[in-house]
Amino acid sequence: MKILIINGPNLNLLGEREPGIYGEDTYESLCAEIRQRGDELGFETEFFQSNHEGAIIDALHDARTKFDGIIINAGAFTHYSYAIRDAIAAIHIPVIEVHISNVHKREEFRHHSVISPICTGVIAGLGKKSYLCALEYFR
Amino acid sequence: MKILIINGPNLNLLGEREPGIYGEDTYESLCAEIRQRGDELGFETEFFQSNHEGAIIDALHDARTKFDGIIINAGAFTHYSYAIRDAIAAIHIPVIEVHISNVHKREEFRHHSVISPICTGVIAGLGKKSYLCALEYFR
Amino acid sequence: MKILIINGPNLNLLGEREPGIYGEDTYESLCAEIRQRGDELGFETEFFQSNHEGAIIDALHDARTKFDGIIINAGAFTHYSYAIRDAIAAIHIPVIEVHISNVHKREEFRHHSVISPICTGVIAGLGKKSYLCALEYFR
Amino acid sequence: MKILIINGPNLNLLGEREPGIYGEDTYESLCAEIRQRGDELGFETEFFQSNHEGAIIDALHDARTKFDGIIINAGAFTHYSYAIRDAIAAIHIPVIEVHISNVHKREEFRHHSVISPICTGVIAGLGKKSYLCALEYFR
Amino acid sequence: MKILIINGPNLNLLGEREPGIYGEDTYESLCAEIRQRGDELGFETEFFQSNHEGAIIDALHDARTKFDGIIINAGAFTHYSYAIRDAIAAIHIPVIEVHISNVHKREEFRHHSVISPICTGVIAGLGKKSYLCALEYFR
Amino acid sequence: MKILIINGPNLNLLGEREPGIYGEDTYESLCAEIRQRGDELGFETEFFQSNHEGAIIDALHDARTKFDGIIINAGAFTHYSYAIRDAIAAIHIPVIEVHISNVHKREEFRHHSVISPICTGVIAGLGKKSYLCALEYFR
Amino acid sequence: MKILIINGPNLNLLGEREPGIYGEDTYESLCAEIRQRGDELGFETEFFQSNHEGAIIDALHDARTKFDGIIINAGAFTHYSYAIRDAIAAIHIPVIEVHISNVHKREEFRHHSVISPICTGVIAGLGKKSYLCALEYFR
Amino acid sequence: MKILIINGPNLNLLGEREPGIYGEDTYESLCAEIRQRGDELGFETEFFQSNHEGAIIDALHDARTKFDGIIINAGAFTHYSYAIRDAIAAIHIPVIEVHISNVHKREEFRHHSVISPICTGVIAGLGKKSYLCALEYFR
Amino acid sequence: MKILIINGPNLNLLGEREPGIYGEDTYESLCAEIRQRGDELGFETEFFQSNHEGAIIDALHDARTKFDGIIINAGAFTHYSYAIRDAIAAIHIPVIEVHISNVHKREEFRHHSVISPICTGVIAGLGKKSYLCALEYFR
Amino acid sequence: MKILIINGPNLNLLGEREPGIYGEDTYESLCAEIRQRGDELGFETEFFQSNHEGAIIDALHDARTKFDGIIINAGAFTHYSYAIRDAIAAIHIPVIEVHISNVHKREEFRHHSVISPICTGVIAGLGKKSYLCALEYFR
Amino acid sequence: MKILIINGPNLNLLGEREPGIYGEDTYESLCAEIRQRGDELGFETEFFQSNHEGAIIDALHDARTKFDGIIINAGAFTHYSYAIRDAIAAIHIPVIEVHISNVHKREEFRHHSVISPICTGVIAGLGKKSYLCALEYFR
Amino acid sequence: MKILIINGPNLNLLGEREPGIYGEDTYESLCAEIRQRGDELGFETEFFQSNHEGAIIDALHDARTKFDGIIINAGAFTHYSYAIRDAIAAIHIPVIEVHISNVHKREEFRHHSVISPICTGVIAGLGKKSYLCALEYFR
Repeated sequence: MKILIINGPNLNLLGEREPGIYGEDTYESLCAEIRQRGDELGFETEFFQSNHEGAIIDALHDARTKFDGIIINAGAFTHYSYAIRDAIAAIHIPVIEVHISNVHKREEFRHHSVISPICTGVIAGLGKKSYLCALEYFR
Repeated sequence: MKILIINGPNLNLLGEREPGIYGEDTYESLCAEIRQRGDELGFETEFFQSNHEGAIIDALHDARTKFDGIIINAGAFTHYSYAIRDAIAAIHIPVIEVHISNVHKREEFRHHSVISPICTGVIAGLGKKSYLCALEYFR
Repeated sequence: MKILIINGPNLNLLGEREPGIYGEDTYESLCAEIRQRGDELGFETEFFQSNHEGAIIDALHDARTKFDGIIINAGAFTHYSYAIRDAIAAIHIPVIEVHISNVHKREEFRHHSVISPICTGVIAGLGKKSYLCALEYFR
Repeated sequence: MKILIINGPNLNLLGEREPGIYGEDTYESLCAEIRQRGDELGFETEFFQSNHEGAIIDALHDARTKFDGIIINAGAFTHYSYAIRDAIAAIHIPVIEVHISNVHKREEFRHHSVISPICTGVIAGLGKKSYLCALEYFR
Repeated sequence: MKILIINGPNLNLLGEREPGIYGEDTYESLCAEIRQRGDELGFETEFFQSNHEGAIIDALHDARTKFDGIIINAGAFTHYSYAIRDAIAAIHIPVIEVHISNVHKREEFRHHSVISPICTGVIAGLGKKSYLCALEYFR
Repeated sequence: MKILIINGPNLNLLGEREPGIYGEDTYESLCAEIRQRGDELGFETEFFQSNHEGAIIDALHDARTKFDGIIINAGAFTHYSYAIRDAIAAIHIPVIEVHISNVHKREEFRHHSVISPICTGVIAGLGKKSYLCALEYFR
Repeated sequence: MKILIINGPNLNLLGEREPGIYGEDTYESLCAEIRQRGDELGFETEFFQSNHEGAIIDALHDARTKFDGIIINAGAFTHYSYAIRDAIAAIHIPVIEVHISNVHKREEFRHHSVISPICTGVIAGLGKKSYLCALEYFR
Repeated sequence: MKILIINGPNLNLLGEREPGIYGEDTYESLCAEIRQRGDELGFETEFFQSNHEGAIIDALHDARTKFDGIIINAGAFTHYSYAIRDAIAAIHIPVIEVHISNVHKREEFRHHSVISPICTGVIAGLGKKSYLCALEYFR
Repeated sequence: MKILIINGPNLNLLGEREPGIYGEDTYESLCAEIRQRGDELGFETEFFQSNHEGAIIDALHDARTKFDGIIINAGAFTHYSYAIRDAIAAIHIPVIEVHISNVHKREEFRHHSVISPICTGVIAGLGKKSYLCALEYFR
Repeated sequence: MKILIINGPNLNLLGEREPGIYGEDTYESLCAEIRQRGDELGFETEFFQSNHEGAIIDALHDARTKFDGIIINAGAFTHYSYAIRDAIAAIHIPVIEVHISNVHKREEFRHHSVISPICTGVIAGLGKKSYLCALEYFR
Repeated sequence: MKILIINGPNLNLLGEREPGIYGEDTYESLCAEIRQRGDELGFETEFFQSNHEGAIIDALHDARTKFDGIIINAGAFTHYSYAIRDAIAAIHIPVIEVHISNVHKREEFRHHSVISPICTGVIAGLGKKSYLCALEYFR
Repeated sequence: MKILIINGPNLNLLGEREPGIYGEDTYESLCAEIRQRGDELGFETEFFQSNHEGAIIDALHDARTKFDGIIINAGAFTHYSYAIRDAIAAIHIPVIEVHISNVHKREEFRHHSVISPICTGVIAGLGKKSYLCALEYFR
């Protein structure tokens, strides 16, 4: 089983960016932890991060024949990128939407996700464990 | 680690109720599967189901000194029971909100949860795995 | 043909409660009149009243294998009890929603019913005849 | 007792028009069935159908001294014809609003009726029985 | 100066229709009083009443080369007939919108007029004097 | 018959202020024209203008025993001064709301008047004739 | 192939009516141009114009067995006539909605069409070419 | 004079529950203080607390012939229980709505009370003094 | 303890103004009753009334070093005067908002207070007792 | 005449992506068909597709001196890219907005286009013929 | 160049009022600093502060022939005083709107300014430098 | 002091693009003028322009350790790019939002900025002086 983990805008600054909300782990250490759990579960994991909406769409298209599942934290694109939504709807593998913080505790614009209706499911608020629980789904 | 799994209204009819949405497992088999995973993780699991909002509030109050974590599928109460919200806010143990179906794919009233902002996190749309992934959070 | 007539909160005070709106017949005399019409139509009628949302859900669950049809006046629960809505959706017998008063003439919150979309039909504003017309549906 | 049954726009196409929603009975067979039940109840029934809002208003005005009651299915005018609303409010005989389909199950614009607040009552979703139950009101 | 006074749906029932709101004068006596004041001011007045939206549009079109001004009480069409709005916008003579009752004191739907933005002005709430004051504008 | 004409904020700048909207007559010439028509009708007219909401309320209170009618152009206070609304509601003489411009043609905030529901009637869009037509009401 | 071109209220005044928006061609010259293009494409074209909503509904009903396609510019009815919407939904031939002006550039009420969801498609803003492009669809 | 003090969901946890908002007094000490002030005023006070909406409705019904007044803190039910609203409307003794915290300072959903319009009055934000001030009303 | 009682616009007309809503006591008798209760409680009471928003702001500023508490009935300013809100927020003594009538029973605009979120608490609907209960808070 | 056809995000997956909605033709075959029709009309056609909003803006800028017209299917960017809207407004050649599917039949977010008000016109719902009809506009 | 600096309600309390938001400088020291920068730029500066909306309108009127520019911090009037808006629109000199705090970071009602659309420009959130930057505009 | 000036989409077309709104200066001349003023103030200025949202995010990230302040005109991204908002929130140097035109005078969508709440301040409507005034802030 091959899983692609996509991280959207500003997640490259994890650890440095608003650590009170997103925690002090860096993007690299987050990836390491996910890879380790993936290894334990016998999954092959790959990682993609970009601040460019178009690059994420390209990555989703590209993944459609290469992976068995996708875990996506679309960052702020979650709340307005109907283009990413359409990209997810266009492919035929399960996609799990994750968020590090509990978006429902924060600004109102974060309460609505335009991609949730076409994802398989959503996991939010569990910190880096949001990704680990999503891996759990695929076993 | 002791975990209480609370299920709200109409979840007693699992398997029989709208199986296209909720699957064909009964409430009993769902509990069995959760218990088994809990056992594997070394957790003590207990289960509570009620169609009565007040009974769920009482159960939450009662749990506050007896459990280390709560997994709650509040059913339709999710969308309007500010009383359950206040009960969760009143206790000091982590509470994970779960949903079997992807509520964001369904009727508009199901898109908004009044308890999400005071829960630790939310897992939706993963079928019975929503509960199993929530267990994963506690390990 | 067996018909269950469910009455929700405050309908036990019929006759005494806001008689300008609900009329001067008591709950008992309403039931008597419905039973009599049911008898004429050759129906077996049973009655359930509760001020407890959970009790109404339990009654709906219980009725699903015992009755051929349900007439429900959910009282104020009509306007917010998504849990009762889910209970009606979970069972497989026709459910007719009735209201004594013309809810569309009254406060704005009474204009919207959360159970109408999953009931077979709705009858409102015909006084106690709302129940009798609903019986008519089943013949 | 003389009852006028008014049917609004597109109801002349009953049977042919979206039969999945409105059934396969034609307008003529609907009228026949209503007349028969009216005969059983000892009522004199008359029928009027038009796709013209103004013609329906004229018919309502004309009926005010000739009938004891009106059953109206205003079709799509239900949702915006404040002129028909005012016509109903201007006359002094009971008017029952009926709908063949359960309008609350359908597009959002059908959830709101501008005539309900000034009708005596509303019956919706019972198919052709909506008219028959309305007749029941007048006995 | 030639003035056309157009009255919309249900105004033919003046005097009989909700006299608490619209007064006890009939449509005929209203016209007579307007004609008399018109005579005093040296105006030629003509009157048109219809319950048909299309007939009012036809009348507006027809008036565009025959009258110097129009006084229109569009009745309930005021609140939704964008077709009458377009007809008024299409002609090049001053049109005064009048209402007998103070529409702002009544149901919310009467607070908004779709024709006001393209009329010359609006007079409401002065009873039959609304028409007489509108005549005053033309002198 | 004694009539008080109240003009609210910025109407002292008439003639100079946005003449494309309000015309080129000054406040003084407007008053002169109203007084002249009042004289013709045998009315005693008095004038009050202020940019201070409180002063207008005081003037309304003061007028309640001294005048037979009030014509008020509350200027921008029309759209938010619930205090002036309450002052009008507190007194027992007819009050006619007037506007020089057709407020419905302009910015959205001008479409709603908080004082209309408690005034006798409203006249808008007739230029300075709005005041003269209002005088007409009192004869 | 037989095509019916329906034009709604006020389109009879084309050329005279707000030429800055609708152009200077008359209704007759518009029809001539459409007919000529139809002839080139080998289509039989017929034309219907009315200011009466009911007449348009009747025409739609009548067309359902006589034409292969309909091009409709419903004028202002576009924005509120759910009755015309239901008439289009009731028939089984393709209907193309057209507008001369770009309705999205104009008043807010013109941004929403109640008939778009049940038409085959929509063409707006191309002047008289909107009709010609619609013809193109049928070849 | 006999006064019933009803406390709704989660108020049994007073002192322990979010003390920054609700203070550190327990439910028991709150009752004691109210009772003492009641004694000083010569009132007989009784107390009822429940987390069950239906139980509160039953208590209101039961109180209607036994008490001279009711002070109710409906907790979170304040914001959605139209059933409790109807129960209060159904009885004929004065009911004062109280809140410990200033609900208008808190989450938006707490700004709206569905029971205020049918209570005699409302007191909020004065801590436990909200109850004591309500007692003051009855003297 | 020194308490300032501020009354806003139109409260000078108490007794004369809409007595069905505000009672028949004059402003002077209201003040007398408050002063007497203040005397009983050992408070020094002072009174200020104005129809001028600015004057109320000045009074609040002036009071900030001279009084221990303020009771304010801001009249209609309650619903829009963010300037008074800011003035209350700028001073450091407790301010209790009071209303004679139950504002939640009345027009929709009265349901929202812009000053509640920065006042200590709110008392509404208890007639003149609203002021007396507010005094009770300060003892 | 030189025409640029711009296709936005996910249109590269045509044929594979949700064929029930978008049809089974690939992006390449769509381009081929447009080119052929362009050839017939004597137009030079060029094609640009990107999933990157910025690339589309760059392409629009670049086109402003090289093409006589643009046909754009902005895909999901249609619904939120005010940046593309500004790019279209910044250039001086006609731009026709097209959509393959009837966006008004689909999810609510697709009902609103942020680019329509600054395009020349809009064609939607005609499948690949939407592009061909747009070509027709340019002849 | 003569510049008038107008400060609205509660700004007289600067330094004392919510210093966490507005800083610790007094109104006097703010004026001194603005005057000094004005002197450096060769501007004549004058200052006006009032808590009375009407007085600010009078000041704006009075300034229209005496100053070359106005800098206005309308305080809370910013959010509802359409009367001040009309006063600014009535005069013909540039008016810059300033705010000390970043109003967009604060309560929702502060996000909307009714005067921005008729001011030349807006500067917010730069503390006392908001005024100094506005001076910069005039050089 | 090093200042980065970021300009978003379509600002490369300054001078050519809608000059009635944005003026006739080109992007290059704007930069030159800013640089000159920066030089006068002793600031080092750098410039970045892109039509790509992702590139602006990358630039913001990159700037966080290299500049003392940022002036950003995010163009249309201002109104929907929550991703840029998050990027600004993620860095720790002051960011001033600027706009050339007075966005509050224009289309409604331009009235709301998603980045204002996390910027230090906002300057709008002062033409190219908006940038110069922002420089002033940093001195």
